[in-house]
Amino acid sequence: MTTKSTIPQEKILAAAEVMFASKRFHEVLMEDIAIGAGVGKGTIYRYFKNKEELYAALLKDASTELMKLIENAVKAEVSCKNKLIVILETSINLFDARPHLFDLILHAEAFQRTSVEFPWQETRWNVIQLVESLFILAEDQKEFFIQNPKESALLLLGGLRAIIRFGNKPRQKQLCNDIVDHFLNGFSKSLPLAT
Amino acid sequence: MTTKSTIPQEKILAAAEVMFASKRFHEVLMEDIAIGAGVGKGTIYRYFKNKEELYAALLKDASTELMKLIENAVKAEVSCKNKLIVILETSINLFDARPHLFDLILHAEAFQRTSVEFPWQETRWNVIQLVESLFILAEDQKEFFIQNPKESALLLLGGLRAIIRFGNKPRQKQLCNDIVDHFLNGFSKSLPLAT
Repeated sequence: MTTKSTIPQEKILAAAEVMFASKRFHEVLMEDIAIGAGVGKGTIYRYFKNKEELYAALLKDASTELMKLIENAVKAEVSCKNKLIVILETSINLFDARPHLFDLILHAEAFQRTSVEFPWQETRWNVIQLVESLFILAEDQKEFFIQNPKESALLLLGGLRAIIRFGNKPRQKQLCNDIVDHFLNGFSKSLPLAT
Repeated sequence: MTTKSTIPQEKILAAAEVMFASKRFHEVLMEDIAIGAGVGKGTIYRYFKNKEELYAALLKDASTELMKLIENAVKAEVSCKNKLIVILETSINLFDARPHLFDLILHAEAFQRTSVEFPWQETRWNVIQLVESLFILAEDQKEFFIQNPKESALLLLGGLRAIIRFGNKPRQKQLCNDIVDHFLNGFSKSLPLAT
């Protein structure tokens, strides 16, 4: 998705992403989104019944994009270690390329008890499950062995979230390689292996 | 802080914590907080000028409590590894004991661009900096060596956040010990040490 798109639906979603990320849900007006997208208010309603639907579409769109990118990247790698590295790289690249997405998700999550859907939660569990399944595959392939796949996946992906949000930019070229390498082999460089 | 407190200020804060964690800021009424706390509306205003001030006090209160607990726990340990373990334990225990706190912070964060202050950010950086300083101390004491203290602190604490939020309950007794041990020595149990 790009703000330079000429397809109205994409222009609307791009404009809405910026607005929902910076304002509270009730402060965002369909009219402002129309102005931001450079389309008439009527055009928005041809694509989205109401603000709730537009908001849900926005998260769904980002979520579908992330999962598609991750799945393709994972398929292109052979080793589980490299598959983990590209999951991290793909996620960081998407969030860096769509700087409003993180806040959009944060807002959606804070609002999730309301009538507004929170489609990102499914994506989150999909990525956690993908990482867990790679840990199990790694054991089958005798590549490496992770004692507690679920907890370890949470720790790796929670760490990834913190890096996306608070990590130094520009990103180091070897960042994801280093994270996965340290995750598997230890962040400490002089201790003997734990028993 | 406990909901059973007889001090009005604490009763107000406890009732407000539950409400702000489950509703949007503008949906929470001082009147409802008064009812929840079992005090008159006038009593609230004797302690807090307005809703913004009450909200900020709530986060400040939780933040002060967490930092005090962490500092005491860290002081009681000698090795940096154990200091890290108790930071994790203290954080998990506080969030488990105050189940509305996580959502309260999530809400505060989603709203941070507004006039409402976000005092939790300071706490977050304090904990990150504490962990970073322990990594550096560990090197001085030749206990272990962490190549990139800032990034590693983000990864450890981001992972901790995911465990607090999505980890299995009841918590395993050895949970924090295992996390720090795996963090330092690797989550993989059959790979040779990376060079």
